[in-house]
Amino acid sequence: MTQFTSEGARGTSDKAQAHLDAPTVIRTKRDGRELSDAAIDWVIDGYTHGRVHDEQMSALLMAIFLRGMAPGEIARWTAAMIGSGERFDFTDLRRDGRPLALVDKHSTGGVGDKITIPLVPVVMACGAAVPQAAGRGLGHTGGTLDKLESIAGFTAEISKSQIREQLQGIGAAVFAAGDLAPADRKIYALRDVTATTESLPLIASSVMSKKIAEGARALVLDSKVGRGAFLKTEDESRELARTMVDLGTAHGVPTRALLTDMNRPLGRAVGNAVEVAESLDVLAGGGPEDVVELTLALAREMLDAAGVGGTDPAQTLADGTAMDCFRALVAAQGGDLSHPLPVGARSETITAARGGTMGDIDAMAVGLAVWRLGAGRSAPGEQVQFGAGVVMHRRPGEPVAAGEALFTLYTDTEERFAGAMAELDGGWQVLSADDPKPEIGPLIIDRIT
Amino acid sequence: MTQFTSEGARGTSDKAQAHLDAPTVIRTKRDGRELSDAAIDWVIDGYTHGRVHDEQMSALLMAIFLRGMAPGEIARWTAAMIGSGERFDFTDLRRDGRPLALVDKHSTGGVGDKITIPLVPVVMACGAAVPQAAGRGLGHTGGTLDKLESIAGFTAEISKSQIREQLQGIGAAVFAAGDLAPADRKIYALRDVTATTESLPLIASSVMSKKIAEGARALVLDSKVGRGAFLKTEDESRELARTMVDLGTAHGVPTRALLTDMNRPLGRAVGNAVEVAESLDVLAGGGPEDVVELTLALAREMLDAAGVGGTDPAQTLADGTAMDCFRALVAAQGGDLSHPLPVGARSETITAARGGTMGDIDAMAVGLAVWRLGAGRSAPGEQVQFGAGVVMHRRPGEPVAAGEALFTLYTDTEERFAGAMAELDGGWQVLSADDPKPEIGPLIIDRIT
Repeated sequence: MTQFTSEGARGTSDKAQAHLDAPTVIRTKRDGRELSDAAIDWVIDGYTHGRVHDEQMSALLMAIFLRGMAPGEIARWTAAMIGSGERFDFTDLRRDGRPLALVDKHSTGGVGDKITIPLVPVVMACGAAVPQAAGRGLGHTGGTLDKLESIAGFTAEISKSQIREQLQGIGAAVFAAGDLAPADRKIYALRDVTATTESLPLIASSVMSKKIAEGARALVLDSKVGRGAFLKTEDESRELARTMVDLGTAHGVPTRALLTDMNRPLGRAVGNAVEVAESLDVLAGGGPEDVVELTLALAREMLDAAGVGGTDPAQTLADGTAMDCFRALVAAQGGDLSHPLPVGARSETITAARGGTMGDIDAMAVGLAVWRLGAGRSAPGEQVQFGAGVVMHRRPGEPVAAGEALFTLYTDTEERFAGAMAELDGGWQVLSADDPKPEIGPLIIDRIT
Repeated sequence: MTQFTSEGARGTSDKAQAHLDAPTVIRTKRDGRELSDAAIDWVIDGYTHGRVHDEQMSALLMAIFLRGMAPGEIARWTAAMIGSGERFDFTDLRRDGRPLALVDKHSTGGVGDKITIPLVPVVMACGAAVPQAAGRGLGHTGGTLDKLESIAGFTAEISKSQIREQLQGIGAAVFAAGDLAPADRKIYALRDVTATTESLPLIASSVMSKKIAEGARALVLDSKVGRGAFLKTEDESRELARTMVDLGTAHGVPTRALLTDMNRPLGRAVGNAVEVAESLDVLAGGGPEDVVELTLALAREMLDAAGVGGTDPAQTLADGTAMDCFRALVAAQGGDLSHPLPVGARSETITAARGGTMGDIDAMAVGLAVWRLGAGRSAPGEQVQFGAGVVMHRRPGEPVAAGEALFTLYTDTEERFAGAMAELDGGWQVLSADDPKPEIGPLIIDRIT
């Protein structure tokens, strides 16, 4: 029998350090206090290895969502997620005797944001190499992998050795994060189904843990601003970009960001296969102006960050070299572009009750409609419908004739239309001649380095 | 292909009604808005039947914890939980030609709160009948079932027909809620491990859904106030009591409440078997004053609420009739009081470094220490240690001699001592002759009807 006196008991170690358990960690954040480094390391490691349960992590995520995190907490949370898995290193790869210019881009998520699909080939065609750990759908925005996987045979589940080979051989690999930041993979799936996506600390740490671990030597962020962005205000998006730029730089990955407009969807197509189709238009030298503009702006930032000059990105779209690179990338990962892209078995069209001018289109309304149609998930691991989506026949400011088609909705599941229609409702209108034209600001709002 | 015009789309039903899914419901509460009746019915039914997942409910619970609920939401949430299972009806039972006086008591949870154990037999001995759906441990307070199950052979898993037989035959049954409010059973287990216990709407709805469904015709609440209570301030505890009184009355179960002090533990023993032992002392006519006082006060309220007079509750402790009733209750549920109560295999004692007077003892510190010793759970379904606990040898205000034992801690798990000691540390002190005496207010603070 051990004996402690009252003074003796006081000699035991700090309470928070000595007795970490999930309810204690959750309670700390729930009550608005900062998590210690030890608590963060413990909870991330515990969740990775199953000692902290899904329901505990989701309660903690909601507490983080509502209480926030200090910069030091975000930094430690990110480091702990990186440390939960492997950090790739491709710096030994050479091309023409020089190290590969390894650079990547990440978007904070937008509606119709298929930019990765034309962008990666453009950057490849200009001589840089892109190791891209990409994600699946989160909330109202689609995931790059969900889109690419709508190409028959395409797989993002490739090994580290295949990623190395592709980087060396063709200059890009787009892969599921896999063993990178496995803690984040689990947390990302949870956030999707627990309405804890739109949180600055959770977005910043999720993005940067994977992007720092994936092996890029420089990073360009596309931080979205507006109705369809995860963070609604420009101040929040700017703070998110700043937080991520600092996180990357602190881990030896020079990072810069563009702040771009996400009040309305990018391009005309929102969904999975429909966005691949639109990307192919861009790679063929056509496609919507805004998609082309953003693709080229991000390509220029990536090439500059990677120290690669000499080729005009626009030229690679005009001369077909970017398209060639995309075909090589898809083929390397098992995809077959000769197979028709999937299209939802059922469709509905919204027509104009009267003529006029198409007003602004709310990106969030379209994003939620597409999600309702089945292009996104409401439970982890759920299969998305590759053929689900919305095509916008008239973009803001374009003339509209009475009776003509404005939107086509696609899904495999008839009963999803009502919900999608309701989401879309109120998110757009046809303006009469007397109404003021929709005010569309610049697509690229600012640059943060 | 269906065609909708822009006007037609506007005719679809209300968005919130038409598209219930878990993330939407969570988001509503997360953003501080009220949940609709339809949303509450949907999420409770969905969780009961597995369509809403644990991680989604726990995110919703944290959002409710931090955002609160309006009275109408609490009422609907409670009704939905009752509706998730059966509501017992024992009004057909008769004794001496008259309906059984079915009455129950519930405590909002305290440290050392073993009151149910002596109280039920006292009320039985006075002629009322107690159908008590009881719970297992939640956070830093023990559960009545965990305590009773430390008696060899005792089971709370009894059928509805056995409950009926016991009510008719001996006048009481203490049972696991089982099929009562199954939604609450699942939610209760989640709250325990996600630090979402101390929430007024969640406490009120949890308690009242089971208490309304268990078949009592009247109910007395023991609403705790102070450091060891789930709600810290008297205002919150008063609001909780008022909320629960209203909920019971609205469902046809006249309810009243006592507000009682939970700044320090009740009695000298906190844990599982140690509390049964102390309860046996009370039933034998002894035991700590505060335990006896609260037992008799609650018994008087219950008998008054049930309309049963004629017997002095105190007499049943003095003359052994309450002890007889307890033995009958334990025997009916398989328990064997001749078997020794379990005691933790390891113990440690805290002794006084100097003489003086025992100061106040923080109920929360003791509750957390006992939880650390293994008497409570940190994951659902976890086995508690029946022999774990703390015995306080000196109560606030009692004289202390240098070197004498103040606390004995019991556990089966040696490594738990350090954590328990750290929790206890700072929760008590020995006062010198110059220090002011600890101020101990009345045990029963108020009565709410």
